[in-house]
Amino acid sequence: MHYEEDCIGRLAVPDDVLYGVHTLRALDNFPIGPQIVHPALIQALIMIKQAAAGVNQAAGTLSAPIAQAIDQACWQLRQHAHPEAFPIAAIQGGAGTSTNMNVNEVIAKLATQLSGVTIHPNDHVNQSQSTNDVYPTAGKMALLQLLPALLAAVAQLTQTLRQKAAATQTVLKVGRTQLQDAVPTTWGHSFNAYASMFTRDLHRLRQAAGGLKSVNLGATAIGTGVNASDYYRHHIVAAVSACANLPLQPAADLFDATQDVDVLVTFSAALKALAVNLNKFCNDLRLLGSGPQAGFNELRLPARQAGSSIMPGKVNPVIPEAVNQVCFAVIGQDVTVTMAAEAGQLELNAFEPVIFASLFTSMTQLTQAVGMLSTKCVAGLQVNAGACRAQVEHSAIAATVLVPYLGYERTMRLIKTALATDQAVPDLLAKQQLLPPATIAQIFSPASLTGQAPAAAAVNQ
Amino acid sequence: MHYEEDCIGRLAVPDDVLYGVHTLRALDNFPIGPQIVHPALIQALIMIKQAAAGVNQAAGTLSAPIAQAIDQACWQLRQHAHPEAFPIAAIQGGAGTSTNMNVNEVIAKLATQLSGVTIHPNDHVNQSQSTNDVYPTAGKMALLQLLPALLAAVAQLTQTLRQKAAATQTVLKVGRTQLQDAVPTTWGHSFNAYASMFTRDLHRLRQAAGGLKSVNLGATAIGTGVNASDYYRHHIVAAVSACANLPLQPAADLFDATQDVDVLVTFSAALKALAVNLNKFCNDLRLLGSGPQAGFNELRLPARQAGSSIMPGKVNPVIPEAVNQVCFAVIGQDVTVTMAAEAGQLELNAFEPVIFASLFTSMTQLTQAVGMLSTKCVAGLQVNAGACRAQVEHSAIAATVLVPYLGYERTMRLIKTALATDQAVPDLLAKQQLLPPATIAQIFSPASLTGQAPAAAAVNQ
Amino acid sequence: MHYEEDCIGRLAVPDDVLYGVHTLRALDNFPIGPQIVHPALIQALIMIKQAAAGVNQAAGTLSAPIAQAIDQACWQLRQHAHPEAFPIAAIQGGAGTSTNMNVNEVIAKLATQLSGVTIHPNDHVNQSQSTNDVYPTAGKMALLQLLPALLAAVAQLTQTLRQKAAATQTVLKVGRTQLQDAVPTTWGHSFNAYASMFTRDLHRLRQAAGGLKSVNLGATAIGTGVNASDYYRHHIVAAVSACANLPLQPAADLFDATQDVDVLVTFSAALKALAVNLNKFCNDLRLLGSGPQAGFNELRLPARQAGSSIMPGKVNPVIPEAVNQVCFAVIGQDVTVTMAAEAGQLELNAFEPVIFASLFTSMTQLTQAVGMLSTKCVAGLQVNAGACRAQVEHSAIAATVLVPYLGYERTMRLIKTALATDQAVPDLLAKQQLLPPATIAQIFSPASLTGQAPAAAAVNQ
Amino acid sequence: MHYEEDCIGRLAVPDDVLYGVHTLRALDNFPIGPQIVHPALIQALIMIKQAAAGVNQAAGTLSAPIAQAIDQACWQLRQHAHPEAFPIAAIQGGAGTSTNMNVNEVIAKLATQLSGVTIHPNDHVNQSQSTNDVYPTAGKMALLQLLPALLAAVAQLTQTLRQKAAATQTVLKVGRTQLQDAVPTTWGHSFNAYASMFTRDLHRLRQAAGGLKSVNLGATAIGTGVNASDYYRHHIVAAVSACANLPLQPAADLFDATQDVDVLVTFSAALKALAVNLNKFCNDLRLLGSGPQAGFNELRLPARQAGSSIMPGKVNPVIPEAVNQVCFAVIGQDVTVTMAAEAGQLELNAFEPVIFASLFTSMTQLTQAVGMLSTKCVAGLQVNAGACRAQVEHSAIAATVLVPYLGYERTMRLIKTALATDQAVPDLLAKQQLLPPATIAQIFSPASLTGQAPAAAAVNQ
Repeated sequence: MHYEEDCIGRLAVPDDVLYGVHTLRALDNFPIGPQIVHPALIQALIMIKQAAAGVNQAAGTLSAPIAQAIDQACWQLRQHAHPEAFPIAAIQGGAGTSTNMNVNEVIAKLATQLSGVTIHPNDHVNQSQSTNDVYPTAGKMALLQLLPALLAAVAQLTQTLRQKAAATQTVLKVGRTQLQDAVPTTWGHSFNAYASMFTRDLHRLRQAAGGLKSVNLGATAIGTGVNASDYYRHHIVAAVSACANLPLQPAADLFDATQDVDVLVTFSAALKALAVNLNKFCNDLRLLGSGPQAGFNELRLPARQAGSSIMPGKVNPVIPEAVNQVCFAVIGQDVTVTMAAEAGQLELNAFEPVIFASLFTSMTQLTQAVGMLSTKCVAGLQVNAGACRAQVEHSAIAATVLVPYLGYERTMRLIKTALATDQAVPDLLAKQQLLPPATIAQIFSPASLTGQAPAAAAVNQ
Repeated sequence: MHYEEDCIGRLAVPDDVLYGVHTLRALDNFPIGPQIVHPALIQALIMIKQAAAGVNQAAGTLSAPIAQAIDQACWQLRQHAHPEAFPIAAIQGGAGTSTNMNVNEVIAKLATQLSGVTIHPNDHVNQSQSTNDVYPTAGKMALLQLLPALLAAVAQLTQTLRQKAAATQTVLKVGRTQLQDAVPTTWGHSFNAYASMFTRDLHRLRQAAGGLKSVNLGATAIGTGVNASDYYRHHIVAAVSACANLPLQPAADLFDATQDVDVLVTFSAALKALAVNLNKFCNDLRLLGSGPQAGFNELRLPARQAGSSIMPGKVNPVIPEAVNQVCFAVIGQDVTVTMAAEAGQLELNAFEPVIFASLFTSMTQLTQAVGMLSTKCVAGLQVNAGACRAQVEHSAIAATVLVPYLGYERTMRLIKTALATDQAVPDLLAKQQLLPPATIAQIFSPASLTGQAPAAAAVNQ
Repeated sequence: MHYEEDCIGRLAVPDDVLYGVHTLRALDNFPIGPQIVHPALIQALIMIKQAAAGVNQAAGTLSAPIAQAIDQACWQLRQHAHPEAFPIAAIQGGAGTSTNMNVNEVIAKLATQLSGVTIHPNDHVNQSQSTNDVYPTAGKMALLQLLPALLAAVAQLTQTLRQKAAATQTVLKVGRTQLQDAVPTTWGHSFNAYASMFTRDLHRLRQAAGGLKSVNLGATAIGTGVNASDYYRHHIVAAVSACANLPLQPAADLFDATQDVDVLVTFSAALKALAVNLNKFCNDLRLLGSGPQAGFNELRLPARQAGSSIMPGKVNPVIPEAVNQVCFAVIGQDVTVTMAAEAGQLELNAFEPVIFASLFTSMTQLTQAVGMLSTKCVAGLQVNAGACRAQVEHSAIAATVLVPYLGYERTMRLIKTALATDQAVPDLLAKQQLLPPATIAQIFSPASLTGQAPAAAAVNQ
Repeated sequence: MHYEEDCIGRLAVPDDVLYGVHTLRALDNFPIGPQIVHPALIQALIMIKQAAAGVNQAAGTLSAPIAQAIDQACWQLRQHAHPEAFPIAAIQGGAGTSTNMNVNEVIAKLATQLSGVTIHPNDHVNQSQSTNDVYPTAGKMALLQLLPALLAAVAQLTQTLRQKAAATQTVLKVGRTQLQDAVPTTWGHSFNAYASMFTRDLHRLRQAAGGLKSVNLGATAIGTGVNASDYYRHHIVAAVSACANLPLQPAADLFDATQDVDVLVTFSAALKALAVNLNKFCNDLRLLGSGPQAGFNELRLPARQAGSSIMPGKVNPVIPEAVNQVCFAVIGQDVTVTMAAEAGQLELNAFEPVIFASLFTSMTQLTQAVGMLSTKCVAGLQVNAGACRAQVEHSAIAATVLVPYLGYERTMRLIKTALATDQAVPDLLAKQQLLPPATIAQIFSPASLTGQAPAAAAVNQ
């Protein structure tokens, strides 16, 4: 146990921890659960500190021994994460200052231990920096680090759907609009439609991530760059980019980049759009898989676990259900991000901690959910081809194809008769001698029903 | 390692865990973070299992040795929580079936170990029950168990505010509407207003909690009570109430109580209303405490930590900031609850896991945040009485009290002159000889300014 | 055309309008659509002005001729609404000041015309009042005036559902949990469950409306009651209650009641809970009515219009679809109310105009939607009793009733066999001689299947 | 009065209206307020009908006289909008079918009147079309038509801010982070930051609008293109683009484009991001303009109207307040869009009407609000340069610039002393002889304080 002092007073710090008085204050101040600061954010801060030490040394504002000690400590923390050294709650007041100070303290202590030179958390580790530039930059870097896993999961889902589509290209099924029977389609069309939808998510996520690459390093406290050398301001972004292997760029307007977080709102919106699409897809899976007897029963989802503690033999669509719930969480988290974003005031948004925490949760949950959905559900689902085809053959509304021949109103009467008397429309047509048999056969061929045959000539004149 | 079988197939189960095949399936199926099932929900399920064993024994559908073994296992789990035995993700498909099965398995295994009799998770531990009645009941019980801590925290905040009000009853300050100077008020009024607001939250939370007391035990799968004896259906709610020391009541309509979750929507709304009030209060604290030089500077919040890694001596309102962020999270979680609630279909809402998880998070975060706010901020705040009084004395808009004497338009011209020429209104009045000095003094007395003196006679006729 | 002056300057006012310079400013300032101030809010303000004139006269602060002229003008405006005189946008800055000034101006002008005495909008019509007390009070009064129509609509829907339940009490249908076949139920149970759910909405709306009855009249600008006489402060609420025939009560803490709007948040939450319930109900209607051939086809909703411009004979569930959309709007409006509520600052919430506008829209849309749903959809729907009964008879999962006889695992195997071989479970049971024929018949009777027969004896020991 | 028939039955239609039985059904079915279908959507549908007639004629499926009659009717409706002919509620069931049928009916009736040839609403006007392709296409076209006005408003706001920045480039002010005094900045930096923020909105809106250009014309009912000729399918998008002067493109996957609406979710998110930015900006304006005596008083917003009915001479920030409220509405409408989007099922999203209605409202409100904000507030605002400069000169926290000279901890003690003793830091420095007078003067020069002077040499080694 030893004592450390800050502007509030003295505090006893255990000797066996890597952090100091500022971290202790935060632990006491913010007993908020359930999450602590995301390790990807800590790692990104460490990379910034490492790069900053190098740039400050080159700028001549930090001596070589100190810079090298900081560098060495950072390398060590990048290889061995020391999670116990970063225990602060994710939701914290102070706009991330506690997290930044925590990292400063740990690096300073470790660098001091490694080098024997006394390293100061603020004067050395934090030199040329402010929480207000390193914290949002680190948050964006962490999001960029987490992104490839999400993109890979969505790409895999898309690819699995394309494979399903290829395997069911000609398998007929009843289309449905507003939950009522509509004209026929094929399973290939359906799976491809989902794949096309998720392909848009890949594009949208990449586009929204573009905004994360613009960072405000060098702004220091509010954008003026006070206490950072010209050299540092011109070289820090490139140095961090190299250190983290990320294509960061300096923001054009450092004041704006320090106080406004709409790029995070936009990124959250891209995550939300993916959640909306996943919800739609999972709702469809659950509906098409309803049954096994008294439902649509067109899809068979892989059985994953016993469905009920009371009803033996019941199997439920538990994977899509779990995905739906993740999506509800993500949509809620988007509201949280929105509110925290619009609450920013003057030269800073003090609520970045909850914004980043929400985004990390959304990204992680979506990555987990999409992976789970691909491998545990979509990859193994089966279409009930026979039943689907039989429904198309029996479908009255499929007679929509007759409109170019008979007009809207005569076709309507025919369909109403077919439904009321439970007859197949081709039979009715033949019986009423409305069209020659060959024409009927051609019209009701799968190709014609699904719009792939040439449409009829101009009979509606 | 041994093998267990479910309707999907065989699975190797480690010998040193208390759970079985169904729990293993869930662990594999739902790799969703960051939270696992809340321990309060697990404990509530254990109490239900314990009570059910007793009632089933009394009903004659469970033998005494089995019932007693279950009872013994439950007592043990209530005293020693065995968190490692309940590892499933909070967000799970299956409407809570995995959690229920997890509890069934652990109790069965423990009861078997304790008694030497083979206890079956479904036939014995889950007898007369379905996930669809025990899971929502346990969720409501857990919320009721968590509620007193939240109520106590809000009550403490309210009490602290009443103390602040008592201590500042006559301390004048400028009132502000739309952020513009308005007529004067006192700090006592302000602190009391916050206390009155939070008193409404206490009432609202208690009222919303009323809906949680109605439970669907005995409904089993969908409300018909299939596979539960008449005796069980009539006695289970009382037995669970006694076991958990909670005033539960059987729902009047078991089908409705099994499928509809609007009481949870209402409870979430009460939490959200508290979040809205906390946001308003914390925004005011941060605004009134702005400064120390170039701000309102009317309140001094206790300094909790160094405010900046770059600006020495800066102290920020970190406690209210943390509370604001909790409130943004709670409001987002209310949207999650809303979406999950309206997605319920037919005889069940499959999305209860995310609803309960969100509510547990909101309750816990609010309890932590309100406690933090009382003890670390409100209890120690100081009003800047001198500066506040000086502002009132200098305030032009305080001349609103002249309207009954001079009318709206003459008063308006006077105030405009006061502002433009930077003169005090009483001086202007005296100079213009608009009112006798004694009247001016009476009108501009603190009592008159804050509405406590008798209003002027009918001059506006 | 004549000129009027305010604190900004002079403005030309047309001679043929009832309003004056303040209204003209607002028309110019707030070109925001699509809605203007709700007439119910205007009417409530007029009643307040009328009551205030009487109370001010009794207090001796307003002369009889002026008070009577105001009273006469108010009566006229209550009988003939003059909508063209109240043209300001619903979303307006100024916390409702423009609306209050508009009403003050119109009454003053009309009273002047009627009486020949010059009536001043502020000194006379607005005497003892501030926008900050009359506006929120009028908003709450308007909500209370609109409430009975909503309650009547929900009560009618509930009653219609109870009638449907009575008519289908014994009609069997397959229950479904997680969209998979579950144990059987009856249509009576289903319709009753919806009715029970909406009964809770009636209770919730009435409870939330309780909070609207507490008003801050007499608070004037911020709660001090500045410029209102003691007599007025003690008599105004009773006078307005009598005038409007509403049971209003004075708020216990006038400062709180002036600045905090959580009672509106709570009222919005009650509207949202109704929207959640309506969404669930309409989703069920659309799902159970899916078909007519390739869907659940258990319900036939009344045909209301041709369903498609291209598919003749298609009939869609347009009424529930419209209700769903209203509910999405109401849930969005609840977010708007939430954000506007938490943005209130210090002695006033400046964003009450959008709060009230959102609440009026939600109430009106819900009243319209619920009425439409009862009369155009629920009243005329038909259950497909034959098909529903056939599904129950064929249902494998109905064999859940065997668990007390055979245990969970043997029953599971039986159900899997039944599904795999497409045999009825009773037939399988008989074939395998697992139970005597009479027991089988009793177990699979409708009463037993739906939980109404005595449950089996204790076989699970 | 004459009778018309649809699949439901016969209905009396007034002779003097342009619509027919389908429109009458919708009027009766959907008594939902407050908005009717947006005229921009009607106009877009008319353009589609006009283009379709031409393409169908070229395809040989529509005779020249009929095609020309339709064309003539459409031209007439484009020049004279006939709003009374399109009276249906914006929130309607049927996925827009009623709106499409309304347009079909009006064109058919008008074309019949103009040509004497009988034109059928479905067989002729709607030929090769379905509501499911023309309705979402028309909705997107309407949004694209409304976009330039919004972009122009945002561009104007940005430009106004740049002008303000240019005029105040060197005017010092105190920066603030977390509402506490921070290092100094200039008004130029502040106004430029807002401009930079809104410039991002321009980019974001244009990017999101890109997704609206992809349309599903030719998909007909669900994507198969049933009942549309090959010729039509290949030519319709180009024809509509030409007719409407919009750069539309055919969607790559017509099934996806018919059933998924995530491009609308993304567009709504871009509107929401603008709302978030506007909220932040307006909150800052209101805060910086607080006063006139007991507030920040750094900005003077143009006085727009009398601020209070009771407090004469009060002037409030009514324009930013109105903008804030629009933003709350837009954020709520984004939630509505999100919920309606994720509720889409299978081959169609039935809830497009409320999605488009919400988007039209958001766009219109934002266009109005941004225009109002530029012209009525930002253009005329004044900075209180003298007071701002005085605050900087008095600011203790400005001493942050000393850190490179004295280190974090000595600077902290100096600042604490300055605040406690109310002395200026340069005076303290001189008194304590910590730095030579010339260095002090250089360090505390405006250029140094705002980060524009070269930073200090490496003293922190």
